[in-house]
Formats: sequence, C-alpha cells, structure tokens
Amino acid sequence: MTDDLKYTIHAHHCHHGWDNSLPPAMTVPPGAMVTIETVDASGGQITPGSTVADVAALDFGRANPVTGPIYVDGAKPGDGLKITLLGYQPSGWGWTANIPGFGLLADQFPDPALHIWHYDAERLKPAMFGPGGKVPLRPFAGTIGLAPAEPGPHSIVSPRRVGGNMDIRDLTAGTELFLPVEVPGALFSIGDTHAAQGDGEVCGTAIESPMQVTVKLELIRDMALTGPRFITPGPISRHKDELGFWVTTGVGDDLFQAARMAVAAMIDELSQAHGMSAVEAYMLCSVCADLKISEIVDRSNFVVSLYFPRVVFD
Amino acid sequence: MTDDLKYTIHAHHCHHGWDNSLPPAMTVPPGAMVTIETVDASGGQITPGSTVADVAALDFGRANPVTGPIYVDGAKPGDGLKITLLGYQPSGWGWTANIPGFGLLADQFPDPALHIWHYDAERLKPAMFGPGGKVPLRPFAGTIGLAPAEPGPHSIVSPRRVGGNMDIRDLTAGTELFLPVEVPGALFSIGDTHAAQGDGEVCGTAIESPMQVTVKLELIRDMALTGPRFITPGPISRHKDELGFWVTTGVGDDLFQAARMAVAAMIDELSQAHGMSAVEAYMLCSVCADLKISEIVDRSNFVVSLYFPRVVFD
Repeated sequence: MTDDLKYTIHAHHCHHGWDNSLPPAMTVPPGAMVTIETVDASGGQITPGSTVADVAALDFGRANPVTGPIYVDGAKPGDGLKITLLGYQPSGWGWTANIPGFGLLADQFPDPALHIWHYDAERLKPAMFGPGGKVPLRPFAGTIGLAPAEPGPHSIVSPRRVGGNMDIRDLTAGTELFLPVEVPGALFSIGDTHAAQGDGEVCGTAIESPMQVTVKLELIRDMALTGPRFITPGPISRHKDELGFWVTTGVGDDLFQAARMAVAAMIDELSQAHGMSAVEAYMLCSVCADLKISEIVDRSNFVVSLYFPRVVFD
Repeated sequence: MTDDLKYTIHAHHCHHGWDNSLPPAMTVPPGAMVTIETVDASGGQITPGSTVADVAALDFGRANPVTGPIYVDGAKPGDGLKITLLGYQPSGWGWTANIPGFGLLADQFPDPALHIWHYDAERLKPAMFGPGGKVPLRPFAGTIGLAPAEPGPHSIVSPRRVGGNMDIRDLTAGTELFLPVEVPGALFSIGDTHAAQGDGEVCGTAIESPMQVTVKLELIRDMALTGPRFITPGPISRHKDELGFWVTTGVGDDLFQAARMAVAAMIDELSQAHGMSAVEAYMLCSVCADLKISEIVDRSNFVVSLYFPRVVFD
C-alpha cells in the first residue's frame, strides 16, 4: 500500500439518513485504504458522564450517524464493493441503554436504563458490568452501507439490500464484506461502532463506543449480489465460548415471538441467579448472548435459542 | 453409579406420536442411567442401500419414531426433568434427503434427493460428502421430549413446550437438558439421532443416523420451567470454526423470509464455487451451516445470516 492510497475522513462528515443525492465527503480510487472517525450511535448525546435522564431525553433525529459518504471512483450499479475491515481503534468507553419503545421486549421494559462502560482499549480485556459479570470484547461497526438506488431519504435505522444498520457482530477486523453497488460511486458510509454485541442485539443497543475504523475499498465488476455477504478470517466465538453456554429456548409457530420467549426466559434466569434487575439482565444479554434459529423446518413449530456465555460469570 | 440404576431399552419400544395415554415401556427411579437404542428418522424405510426412489415412497406415518416412553418414578407436573446426555454410540452410516414438501425451500426443491453417508463411528473424522466437501461430526438426538398434559395424540414432527423434535444441534454428549414435566412419570422418549446438523436444519434433514444414546434422568422439584433449556459443558463450534465462515444474509421485515433469502444465496454461492447441484448444496447447508439472527431490533428490517464453515472445503 503506497501512501497515495491512504485517506482519512473525520467525524464531522456525518449524516443521519441514506440518500443518493448527498454530496460525497471524499472521492477515492478503488484500492484506497481509508481511516474513518466515527461518532457513537447517540450522535454525542450520551457521554461518559451521562445519566439515565439523557436516555429519556434522546433526540432520535440525531441517532445513528454514519461517516461519509465516500465516492469510489468508477463504481457503477451491478458492481460489488469489497470492504476489507482492516482494524478498529476503540476509545475505551461505551454505553448500553434500554431506550423506551425500542428493543425486542420494548413492551416489557418501558423505562429508560443506562450503563456506562469503561474498558481497556489497548488489550481489550473483558469489560466489567457493574451489576455483575464481565463481557468479552470484539469491536465492529454496526452500520456499514451504500446509498440505495431509490431516490430520496431513507431511514438510517433499518438495514436493507445495500447494507446499512445490519448490526452483524462479526464485521470485525479481518472480515471481508461485499455489498451491491446501486449508484455511481457506491457512496459508502460507516458508523455505529460497538465494542461488543451478541447476535440479535436484543435490547436494541450494544456496547456503543466511538472508534476509528480503517477499511480498504475495492471494486468487483458485475458481481450480481442479491444482498450483503461476508467472509470471516477465522473463528467468531472463541473470545467467549470456552466454558460453554446457558441456553433458553422459545418454541412456537412465529420466529419473532419464539425469540422473545427465549430472551424473556434468560432474563428470568440471570436476574434470579445473579441478583441483578431484569433490565440489567436484558442489557447484558444484548451485549454478549447469541440468538440462533435452532430449527426452522418442523412445522408448525420453530425453535429459537438464546446462548449466554458462561465465561461472563466465571 | 451402581448397577441397579442402569437400564437398557431397545428400539422396538418405539412410538410415532406424543400421547400421555401410551403405556410406559419401562419405569425407572430418579437418578437412573438408561441406554436407549434408537431407530433412524425414516423408521427404517431408508437403509444404507437406498436410492432416491425410497425417498419418493416415504410413508410419513412411520417417520420420526422415538424410543420410550420411560416413566420416571415420582415425577409430577411442575417438576423439571434433568436429562444429562452421557454419550452417543453412532452406527457409522446415515442419510440426508430432500423430501418433497418438507424443508425451508420446499417450493424451490420439489424433487426428492438422497445422500447416503458412511463415516468413522469410532473416531468421528469429518464425513466425506460425495459431491464435494467434508463435514465435521458431532452426534446428538434431534428429538427429546416428554408427554404433554393435553390428552390425545400430538404430532411427533412439531416440538413444543415439553420438548420433542427440537433439532437443537448442541444436545450433544455432556449437555444437560431441562424439560418441564406435565404428566405423572414425565413419560420421556428420545430418537431422531443425527451425526451432524447445522442450526436450522434447513433442508429438513440432518445426517440421520441410528445410534445408541445413554442418558441420566433426574428430577428437580417445582422447577417452574417455561420451556426447554440446557447447559453446554464447553464450546459448541470448535469442531468446525477453525478457518472461519462464508456468510450470506437475508434482510427483510419477516424473519422466516429473511432466512430463506440467506439460504438461497448460499446455495447459489456453493453450487457455483464447487460445481455441485443446487439440491446438493442445499443438503450440505443443512448438515453444517448455521442460521443466526444477526439483528432483530432495527425495525422494520431484520437480518438473518447463514454461516457456512470454510473448513468443509479446506
């Protein structure tokens, strides 16, 4: 990599929705290596000194900013954009919140809650959760996407065919992500960085933590992608699987409701076993427990399982 | 464990539905260690010499037999039955089929298909898939359940609150499973043993393989379980995660359809990359790829991902 392919883009180049008419913050050639500053998912509304009052007062119009867009020279609809996630530089602090109206069990948790995390940004040792437990860290960006072809503004909260707020916990350093290009220049943006999250992100937030991200952007001509896909360079759960898992299940004819049952059962188990409140157990599940579809074929009932790593309470 | 707590139950004690009026095949005291012979999920209709014609001719009334029921002395509604899965003795052969009308993509795969596996039952080395790839093995029972309180016969295909055909791939040796007792004696049965399966069992069948299973059955008084839960003694994916994963995704407002998109995308990728037919790729996904709910909170769109282990094609 020569220096003339290295770029930096700062956090003030952020936007709050997807729109292919947004002017690019930067233009880079294919093969560029770009270091990107991100803002946390609250857009700076939550800080290390915040209290639960700041969660109650959150302005959703400022939520989930992404840094960009970056115009990749020569990218055209039908191409694939290959995004190699070269590395993350975490900030050492983060937050997890229960935001009223948001999250898998929003009906059961109407009140705001907040946990502020401080973690070792250098060695990424498991982060202590005040009410109990320690959470293994594995930084990634929750939102990585391109501008959609359809004109006009589109919600930053929903992911779509061109990526966006996918919240896939394995978009970690070393992973190669492929997204379908729908507009000239691809218009790449990234943000919503997380220090840790379980599959599902069940309470709606992870360990939300501002970071610097470095990516390499390459074009693959006429890739005909139907949606996001990615390749992980190695194992994805060894940071937390050593002692096995406690697992709760939901059995039913609707996957969404089955997932809710599994999460509710785990919250009961954790709060009883470890003397924490239900909302604390809910937030802890969100940052480290994984939702899996155990079976999706034995109609009329499916099984969704929530895997909570035992190492958290070792 | 003294010898007077050791029991054996043979495969001719099998039944094809759940019904709390079925007479127990055996009565055991709590703490009993029972070795159970199982029949394969076809009920013996598919053999190592079978062809695809046997799949087309399958009699569903004989499908998914379980061995039992075992009456656990003193078990009463409200108790939990703790089932420690002590070990599996695999037979060394198995089958995977696409059965018309069954499976996540039944509409796309209307024709029967069959793969017969032969594997090393002693060392459980990865099993060669004829069309390409080798599949790491990890035996478990797909169906473990108790009789439901509701009278009359209940389908053996659907899992429910008391367990049954859960097809949870981590019910392997060493795992402790807890099921809610709804009738006196619990009425425990087990079957549908698999040599390997991915989360989801997407084509509807795993490596279906008759085995002997040994379990320990214990009672936990007044456990107030809301459904099945279990504890794994250690990691669950190290048999296949070493080289990482290829991952496809489905993004949409319905988890079931998102799962279908992810599986269809992986079938396209595998069949193109490894020169196998689509139905072969579909069956291969079913025995080794894992369906995860990546995010379930960013309404209106969810992300379901299919993780295919790269070690299969190493």
